[in-house]
Formats: sequence, structure tokens, C-alpha cells
Amino acid sequence: MALLFSRVLLRNSSRGYHFYRIKDLSTHTCKPGNKVNVKGWVKSVRNMKGNLFVDINDGSAASNFQLVINKEKNIDTAYGSSIDACGVIVASPKNKLELHVDTLKELGKCPLTEGYPFYPKKSYPPEYIRNHLHLRPRVNSMASTFRVRHEATRAFNEYLQQSGFVQIHTPVLTSNDCEGAGESFVVKPLNDQLLTSMAKENVPLEHAYFDRPTFLTVSGQLHLEAMSHGLDKVYTFGPTFRAENCKSNIHLSEFYMLELEEAFMGTLEELMDRVEDMLKMVTKSLIARSASDISLVRKLTTDNKLESSFEWIDKPFPRMTYAEAMDVLKVNESKLKSPVRPEEGINKEQELFLVEHCQSPVFVCYWPREIKSFYMRENEQNPQLVDALDLLVPHVGELVGGSVREDSYDRLQRKLPNMAVLQWYLDLRKFGSVTTAGFGLGFERYLSWVLNVHNIKDVIPFPRWAHNCVM
Amino acid sequence: MALLFSRVLLRNSSRGYHFYRIKDLSTHTCKPGNKVNVKGWVKSVRNMKGNLFVDINDGSAASNFQLVINKEKNIDTAYGSSIDACGVIVASPKNKLELHVDTLKELGKCPLTEGYPFYPKKSYPPEYIRNHLHLRPRVNSMASTFRVRHEATRAFNEYLQQSGFVQIHTPVLTSNDCEGAGESFVVKPLNDQLLTSMAKENVPLEHAYFDRPTFLTVSGQLHLEAMSHGLDKVYTFGPTFRAENCKSNIHLSEFYMLELEEAFMGTLEELMDRVEDMLKMVTKSLIARSASDISLVRKLTTDNKLESSFEWIDKPFPRMTYAEAMDVLKVNESKLKSPVRPEEGINKEQELFLVEHCQSPVFVCYWPREIKSFYMRENEQNPQLVDALDLLVPHVGELVGGSVREDSYDRLQRKLPNMAVLQWYLDLRKFGSVTTAGFGLGFERYLSWVLNVHNIKDVIPFPRWAHNCVM
Repeated sequence: MALLFSRVLLRNSSRGYHFYRIKDLSTHTCKPGNKVNVKGWVKSVRNMKGNLFVDINDGSAASNFQLVINKEKNIDTAYGSSIDACGVIVASPKNKLELHVDTLKELGKCPLTEGYPFYPKKSYPPEYIRNHLHLRPRVNSMASTFRVRHEATRAFNEYLQQSGFVQIHTPVLTSNDCEGAGESFVVKPLNDQLLTSMAKENVPLEHAYFDRPTFLTVSGQLHLEAMSHGLDKVYTFGPTFRAENCKSNIHLSEFYMLELEEAFMGTLEELMDRVEDMLKMVTKSLIARSASDISLVRKLTTDNKLESSFEWIDKPFPRMTYAEAMDVLKVNESKLKSPVRPEEGINKEQELFLVEHCQSPVFVCYWPREIKSFYMRENEQNPQLVDALDLLVPHVGELVGGSVREDSYDRLQRKLPNMAVLQWYLDLRKFGSVTTAGFGLGFERYLSWVLNVHNIKDVIPFPRWAHNCVM
Repeated sequence: MALLFSRVLLRNSSRGYHFYRIKDLSTHTCKPGNKVNVKGWVKSVRNMKGNLFVDINDGSAASNFQLVINKEKNIDTAYGSSIDACGVIVASPKNKLELHVDTLKELGKCPLTEGYPFYPKKSYPPEYIRNHLHLRPRVNSMASTFRVRHEATRAFNEYLQQSGFVQIHTPVLTSNDCEGAGESFVVKPLNDQLLTSMAKENVPLEHAYFDRPTFLTVSGQLHLEAMSHGLDKVYTFGPTFRAENCKSNIHLSEFYMLELEEAFMGTLEELMDRVEDMLKMVTKSLIARSASDISLVRKLTTDNKLESSFEWIDKPFPRMTYAEAMDVLKVNESKLKSPVRPEEGINKEQELFLVEHCQSPVFVCYWPREIKSFYMRENEQNPQLVDALDLLVPHVGELVGGSVREDSYDRLQRKLPNMAVLQWYLDLRKFGSVTTAGFGLGFERYLSWVLNVHNIKDVIPFPRWAHNCVM
């Protein structure tokens, strides 16, 4: 349960005008006749019969707020300026609140001709907007996207807290390189003098800071497993890194992953229940809090359209085995551009086909051992399979990957790729071992799906990918 | 307001025994006679009159839970094992619940003689425990620390959400190197073939991945400022990096920082109000939720002691100018080991002296321009000063550093250290400029203070510092 923080800091109100953020201006909080102060950026200016109609936004809400400036006031302002306005609240004929301005101060002008990239009444393609990262939050649809990202972060945290999970800050810097070694970034101090001063015999100079090669994390899973052996239910939510030369719309060099690990969990069915429950509850909560922002980004005009975009929330997700998925793909091979090769897994085209085929997000479970990771548990009935799942969703394909973890010390020892660095991981199976299961969810892929945004570079404030790291 | 997630996934209960986590076992939820299943790790075993008294913990609570095994059951277990027990709830004479065991299954043994580092009934110094990071969560005081860290994270998030702030995931990878350049880590792909394949003319090979030198962030502030120009109230909470060869108890190479930026905020007084309000409200909320864990880590035995440790919550923090702080230090120079040099700032000994002098956390504000950063606003009355603050607290010294940001395009242009890389930062003062103010808070320092833990390496799950990056 959230404790309420009773005291709220109020901004200084100007000369008898009470300060409001735009999201707090409603007929519930504010009556016609109230003297109100607002601050924000000018989104549009219209001159009608000599009066100025000025739409402003302060970043708190999806909708702009309208100021009306009587021509006799001799007040002027322009698109893009930051302003501080005082006036009296009036209800429009449609019972929408607006502010009839007494005084208006321009805090900062916005000289379009000196390089401001966004002109009034123009819409721009995402690639263009992305070229101006530092000014993107002024674009309403981007501000909405970032607020939804915030609310989604909050919804995942709340769901997991209420389900008894402890958030663990797994490290960005790690000396484990077992997974995705070919795709790791490596780290060293910029200052060569520092390195020299820290040099040790038998340690290459470039590794002198930590005495060993050190990488940016590709997954917090192994660290989470250690924490779950003691804390039971744990999760991590933070930045994750891949050094790939990839231009796809679903890959980033720095992205956010939600990873969860649950001790005393021994079956894939329980894990699928967890994934499905989480996604449905979180998305319900997100829609309840962010309907206006989601509708704005998805360009929906009615609540009805929003509801019909999320029909999957009320239906169970189909669950098929890998073998069943292969059967579906084989039967439909003629509709696919790519050949179906069970020994190679499922590519993105095939993932999206399965989703389309099921008309729903769909779990694919019990995968061939050979194409999955060393830490996945061999299936009891068929040791050629591992207890692993992928969840495939519209738009992005694989959203979640998870498994029951191998809990046999002997089998794990045989399969472990790098004994020296991962001796600690074997220890977990030696001392008070328990079966754990968990998964990782790509947060930008989730947002891209929910917001129907084509490229995940547009749901993260500062996207980094091959040849791109601006700011 | 938190939405409640109505559906809770329940673990499979065994043969009519209802599964409980230890934190949920209380006289409110569970009655004597109930058939209950618990899972966890054995913390101690005592043999009395032939009965076994077994304390277990599953990581959900500060206190262990007692199992009683009648000698006639012929059930045995040992310290460190993971177990799954079914039995009947009985209230002890002191009305404490315990479980009289019907069946007990050992999931994993814990062979002490094969290298398990923690023996029963022994306490170990923090440095020793820290040498076994992957097994630390089995130590009750460490499990409590990590739960408090989780609850503190949650309390900061909730306070900021309820105060209208949007959480921004500022990037770990950045091409800005203006601040702390000497202390930056630099990043490149591990795979040299990848680098070669991405090579471009005029770009040094080591920078080929991003086309430019790329660092781990030393602060998200500049990125936050960009976001606050559009979203107004924003914050970031995540990992931050410093490449220092430092062995102090308040420094880490990877640490967590809470950074906040608020637009339309023009005075240091408002910023001090924000910092003070946040710290008090968050700490109140934390104490309300985590009293048992905090008491366990602080080794307090009564609620009374907990209250007296947090008396600062109900008193205003003193606010002194830098000049006043210097006066206090000068008058007391004979009590200090270090000389007082106004042109050099305040060192840790002096910070702690000021805190002791005020018997309270204390703000020091309006610092000399020469010893502070380029982005801090020159004071209107005295341009030799900047509108900057430090908050000093017991135990760690500087906890928070903040300022009103320089909002004059011309002054900023003169002071900016690296024009080419930070042209975008100047743009913020050119297009719809607003005054913003903000601060950064060292999260591990906060925990170290609140938990009275000497070394911040023991309040973070996986500490990284010079010559140390295990796992």
C-alpha cells in the first residue's frame, strides 16, 4: 500500500494568483472566477477578431490549456516561448476551462529562424524528431511517450512490490562474460596515468583498474539468482548493453530490461502464469492512469478505440510447445519468406506469423536444448528439451524469454562455459540449493507494442545504437 | 494513488497445507490449527529434550520463524539447508506462532566442510562477509539491508511521483565528457572484428562503434535539464560511475544517484525546501515500512531507540551561507586536524564538524564561484558567489549537492568547458528558456546514514571499487 505524502510543496503564487500545473486544472479543483497562475511553453497562437488564443503546455498533461488574451491588453507572445501567465478562470461553452489573461511574462523567446527545428502546425517524421534529442520533449507526442514510460515503470514496480518481490540493483559493471561475450562492451578508465599508477604484475595494463577484464552487463540474471537464494522473490529493472552492428527497429545498444527470479518455483506453467498475470495487470493499471497519453501517441480519437486495442487483456494467452509451433510453421511454410528450420529456432517473421495465427500473444515453451542457454533446466521427461519459454507478441515478436534454471550441480558443471569466472554460480547449487525460475522482458519492446510505435528508438529518451550516441 | 493488483498468484500448496511466506504468517492471517506449508533456509537448529527447534527464514522478513519437530517424527535437518515443511500452526505461550511439523523435505543440503563461509552462531566482520558476495543474502543482516534498500528506492519513487515528477531513464552511455572527465570510464566493444567492420575514415578505430569517444555517465543532470525543458518536473535514479583510485568508505566506482530537476524554479530557498521535504517524508515512510529491518541492521532492541535515532525528522534543518560556515570553522580551527582554507572548500572532517556543531543535518549555501561547476547560476547580489547548496549529514558528510542552473545564454557560453560537445546545452537557453534548479543525492550515502553502516560497500548488493569487481 502506498503511504500518502501529506505535505505538498506549492510553488510561489504570484500576487494573489494561485499556481496550478495544467494536469491539476479541472472543474473539480478550480472554479470559474478563480485567479490562477500557469507556466509553460506556447504550443500555438491564433488571432481571432483581434483576440489571441494561446495554447500552452507545461509537460504535465496530454492536452494543451487555452489562454485567451483580450486585444486591449496589448500582450503578445509567440510559438515556442516559455511564459508565466496570470488571469481568471472562465468555463467555455463546452464547460472546458480556459484562462482569461491579466498579465503575461515571456520568460524566454524561441527564435525559429536561429535553428529551432520544430515549426508550428507542422508534423515531422520520427527520424527527423530523433535528430534533435535535446528538444524532443517539446513535441507533445514525445512528452506523452515519456510520461507513459514513467507510468509503465511505476506499474511494473508496483505490481512486483505487491507480489512480494524485492528490487535488486544488479551491477552494470561485471566480470562475468559467460553470456553474449561476443556482444559485450569492455570498460576502462579514460585516464591512462591512473591506470599506470594502479598497475600490478601479471595484470595487463588495460585491466589494471579492476584487476580483471570488466564488461557492461548483458543480463542481471545470474546476479539475481544469487540474491534469490536467500531473498526468494527478486527482480531488477535497469540498463542492459549489447555491442551489435544492428539497424533493426527492435534493437538498441543500451536498453532497459525487467528481469525477475523466483525461488522455490519448479515448473514452467507457474512461470507462464507469472508472466501472463504481470503483463495483464500492469497494462490494465497503465491504461487506467495514462489513457490520454496512450491515445495521443497511438493517434486514437475515442476511448472505444483504446479498449479495442487491448482486447488481449481479458483472454488467456495460448501456450504451445516448440514442436507444435514448428508444426504450425511447416504447414504454412508457403506463406513465409524464410525456411522453417527447427534446429535454428524461430526468426522474427515466424514469430509474428505465430502471433497472427493465434490472434493473441502466445507462449512457445519446451525448446530444444541445443539452441538455448547452459543455465536452462533439462526437461525431466525429455532431456533433449529444456524448460524454457518465449512470449511472442504483436509488433515486436519476442517480448519475454525465461526458464526454470538448471538445479543439478553435476549437469550444470558439465555445461558451464567458463569455470573459473562462474565457480560462484555452481556454489548456489552446492549450499542450500533451491530450484528457481525467472525471465527477462525487453521494456522498450513492451512500450513499442503498447504504444504502437514502430521503432524502439522512439520510446527511450536517449537512444544509443551503432554509430549513434548523441549527448 | 497505487492501484491494487487484485489477483495474487499463490504458490502450489502441498496436500492440503496452505503455503505462506514468513512475513505473512501472523495472528491476523493464520490461526492455531491451520495446516501450513513454509519453505526457506535453516538458520539454527537446537535439540531440547529430544525435540528439534528449527529457525528458518525465506528472505521475506527480519525475524526467523520457528519449526518444532517432535523427536518421534524421526526428521532431521541441519543449518544452511533449504527445506520445505508442512505442519500445524500452534501459538506459543507468548502468543507467537510456530509450526509443529508433520513432514519436512530437505531441498538442498549445505555441507559446511566443503567451503560454506558462514558457520552457525558466529558473527563475522563486514569485510569477511563482503568476500562472499554471492552468499551474502543468506546472512540475515544483509537480507535486511537489501530489503531496506528496496523500500528506500520505493519511498523516493513514491514521493516524487506524488509530487508530480516524471522519472527519466537518463543514459549510462554518453558522449558528454564535460564533468569529471578525469574520472570517466571509457567504453568500446570487446570484439575487435566488430570494430574493424565498423571503421570509418577520420574516426579512430577504438571509437568506431559510436563514431566518437563514449563514456559511462558521471551524472544525468545535463540530460535531465533537457527533459525539464518540456516536462518541467523530472528525476532520474540509477547507476553512476567514477574511475577513482579511492579506498574511502564513502566512494564506489558504481553507485546510485537520485537526481532531480525542476523547471520554473528560481531560488535556492525553494530548492532547499524540496530537499528537506523529500528527505523527511521519504525517511518517515521508510521507517513506517521497514522498522524491523532497520532495527536489525542498526542492532537496536526497542522501538524507542529507533525513534531517538531519527529525531532530526521533526526539526527544521539549519541553513548557513558558505561564509558563515567558514566563520564557524575558523573559530574552531584548533579542534580540527585540517586547516580551514575558504578557497578550497570544505573537507570531510570539516563537514562532519559542522554537522556536530549544529547537532543536525545542515545546508551550506551560496558558495564561491571559483570552486563550483560552470552550470551554477551566478548570484544576483554577489557574482563572486553561485546559487549552490550542499546538504551535510552525520556519518557521511555531503549527502546532497544542488544549484539553480545558469540561465543566461551569454554567461553560460563564456563558462562552458567544451563548446563542440555541449552546443545542445546552450540551445536550452536559446529556445524557450526557463530557469531550472536541481540536485543529486548519493543513495548509498543515504542508506549508510540511515542504517548506521560504516562502509557504503555494505549497502549495495554488488560493490565495485578500485581493484574490485567480483561476479
